[in-house]
Parts: sequence; C-alpha cells; structure tokens
Amino acid sequence: MTISKNVKIVENILSANDQIAQDNTSLFQQHKITAINIMASPGAGKTSLILQTIKKLTPEFRIAVIEGDTAPVTIDADLIATHGIPVVQINTGGDCHLDAPMLRRGINQLSLDGIDLIIVENVGNLICPAAFKLGTQLNIVIASIPEGDDKPYKYPNIYRGIDALILNKLDLKPYLTFNTDYFLQGLRALNSKINFFEVSCKTGEGIETWANWLKEQVVSNKKKH
Amino acid sequence: MTISKNVKIVENILSANDQIAQDNTSLFQQHKITAINIMASPGAGKTSLILQTIKKLTPEFRIAVIEGDTAPVTIDADLIATHGIPVVQINTGGDCHLDAPMLRRGINQLSLDGIDLIIVENVGNLICPAAFKLGTQLNIVIASIPEGDDKPYKYPNIYRGIDALILNKLDLKPYLTFNTDYFLQGLRALNSKINFFEVSCKTGEGIETWANWLKEQVVSNKKKH
Repeated sequence: MTISKNVKIVENILSANDQIAQDNTSLFQQHKITAINIMASPGAGKTSLILQTIKKLTPEFRIAVIEGDTAPVTIDADLIATHGIPVVQINTGGDCHLDAPMLRRGINQLSLDGIDLIIVENVGNLICPAAFKLGTQLNIVIASIPEGDDKPYKYPNIYRGIDALILNKLDLKPYLTFNTDYFLQGLRALNSKINFFEVSCKTGEGIETWANWLKEQVVSNKKKH
Repeated sequence: MTISKNVKIVENILSANDQIAQDNTSLFQQHKITAINIMASPGAGKTSLILQTIKKLTPEFRIAVIEGDTAPVTIDADLIATHGIPVVQINTGGDCHLDAPMLRRGINQLSLDGIDLIIVENVGNLICPAAFKLGTQLNIVIASIPEGDDKPYKYPNIYRGIDALILNKLDLKPYLTFNTDYFLQGLRALNSKINFFEVSCKTGEGIETWANWLKEQVVSNKKKH
C-alpha cells in the first residue's frame, strides 16, 4: 500500500482524559514531583494511610494532598490540614471517580515549587477509578482485611497495572478469616510485579517498610528528570 | 394560557431505565413477589446477609437470588446455590452497578410462579447503584462497622430513599472506634423514616429482628395485590 505524502496518519489518538493525564505527568516531571493516586473501597483506610505517610516522610519531604470526594464534605481534608500540609479538595459532584481534568484543576490550586510528593486520594470505589488515568507516576490500591480475601477475584480491573497493594487493618486479622495466600494468588494473577505491603494504620505496624519504599520512589524520580 | 387541543402535553416522561424499572415492579406485583435490592461497599457482607436471611425465611417463603457482579466470577452465586436456592448471575461486564434492563434479563431467567421473595445483590459500590432504580419494592444498604461511622456524610446519595440500613459486623465493634450515634445522626438527616438494624452475620446477632421485619414486608405485599 502506498500512502500519499499528503495523507497524515495520526497514531495513538488519546482520549481527552488520557491527553490531560499525559500533560499532568509532564507537569509533575517538570517540577520533579512524584504524584501518587490512592484508590480503595470506602473505609479501607485511605486517609489513615495518608496521615501515617505524612508522619514518616515529613519534614524530609514536602508533601501536598489532593482529596477527591463525591460529596461536599471536608472531613478528610480538614484532618490532613491539621498536620500543616497543603490540601486541595475536589468535589466530584456525585461522580464516582476522579479524572485527569479534575486532578489538573486541583493541581492548579497548589503552589508546586518545592513540593516533592503529591498524594491524591481518589473517591472510595473499587470499580470506576480503574478506568480513568490521572497522570500520577504511581498508582496504588489499599485493601483491608475486613473486606475479605476474594476482592482481586471480584473486582479485577482495579488491580491491573497498579504499582503497589497495601493490605491494611492487620490488627483485625486475629478476629477474621482472611487467607493472605488466596488474596495474593488472585492479585498476582492480575499483576505479577506488584509490590505488596501489609500494614495497620491503627498500630503503625508495617508503615516503616511502605514509607521507605515510597521514599525511594520519590528520590529516584528526582534523579530521573 | 390556552393550549390547542392538538398539542399533546407529555408529562412525566421517564428515562428508559425508570420505565423498565416500573415494568419490573408491575411484574413483581402481578406475581405477588417482593423484590429487594441490596447495596453496599465491597466486603460489607451482602452475600453473608443473604445467606443468613435464606436460613431464617426458608422453607416458609420461597426465595430466588439475582447476583450482580462486575467480573465473570461465580463465587457468591455458587455459595448461594449450595443452599438449594435458584440463583441467576448478572455479569455487568465491568459496569459499576445494576440497572433495570439488566435486572429484567435476570428475572427472565427465573421461573416466577411460586416465588415469594427475590433478593437482588447489587455490585459492591456506595455511589453508582444509587442512581439506577431497579423496580424492587424494597431497597436497602448494608454498612459495616470497619468502614467507619462517617459514611453517611461522605456518600450521602446511597442512603436517600432507601427502606432500611443494616449495620453489619457488630462482632468487630469491641476492636474499633465506631460511634453509632454519629452514624445514625448522619443517616437520619438524609432519611428520617429509615428502618435501622444492627447485626453480625458472623455470630447471627440481630438477624432475627431483621428477618422478622422482612417477613412482614413480604406478607404485607402479598395482601396488597
């Protein structure tokens, strides 16, 4: 097949969302910022993990948080702000996930100079956030022991392509039947290279290991760009 | 204002979903069936509550279950089928909720004669199922203690207009900080007439009260039509 020089072949046309996600990534890299998208079911411990992470990473690293909420309440944002961290709340207006344009509007509210890490708390949902790239370099999911060990089998899309899985509420394990091997088997079938951390945001168990891994990512991103 | 006789005023145009939801309701009433839509976060205990409810209501009532799942796994459907209950699984193909046409296709797989109660397990999600009426006469949400007491404030839409809220995993209450008054205050601000049940699907605590209420609804629906 011969193609005339006048015919322009447009490859990899991105969706509007993915185009803006790519722009978000460029903006993060330009400012040597690592951005992380935290996804989970309602009540799995997203805000608790963010608070524990802030404790371990500050003041060494400068952190900002973008809170995604489906309702106009500032419960989580207020809690984080008490730790002296810049917080922007995005109210999705009932929507079940953040998307790249929403995140961009959130980023635009922050002063990026001097920030090392932006933590994005997505809306509590194991389905919809999987379908919308935000442009964050890291994407993680928090699962929690009381949700049960069958979640990777039932909600597979959210675990594909993420960088880490944090299994929270280890402190409740003695009171529940949770087969970690069965959980991991389902998880690794979807994502063989995933980093796996077991933590209790309540007792602090396992937080050090997670925080050290995250620190390494932030440092390594700074060197890259 | 005078309106010409030739101008047809079409009132209450229903969305395609709501029209089919209304048809589903008519079908249930025609067969003297009560249908109940169970919504919750992933892992709140939807299947466990269904199993406990089956134990209490059979053989007095004849029950069928329609399972909504975002992935093509039959973990929950298989578990329910072991109790000799007719089960239809609806795979939403990644969608984050059931809708009325999906439910209709599920109903069409059942033999309705002789059925008293159809229990519909919606996809695990606290946001999207709120926006899609199914045509079930009863709509309930299961919350669970480990999810935290702030959920009515953060995910308000799902609690509006439902008939009952079941607070599950009471057995974990000693190990967690859960302020039931705060939870109820948020819940009742959205839905003042809601029926509230506290249960543990693990120990069976509170199940009798819930099951008795549900029995009353089934009997009362039979008398109505």
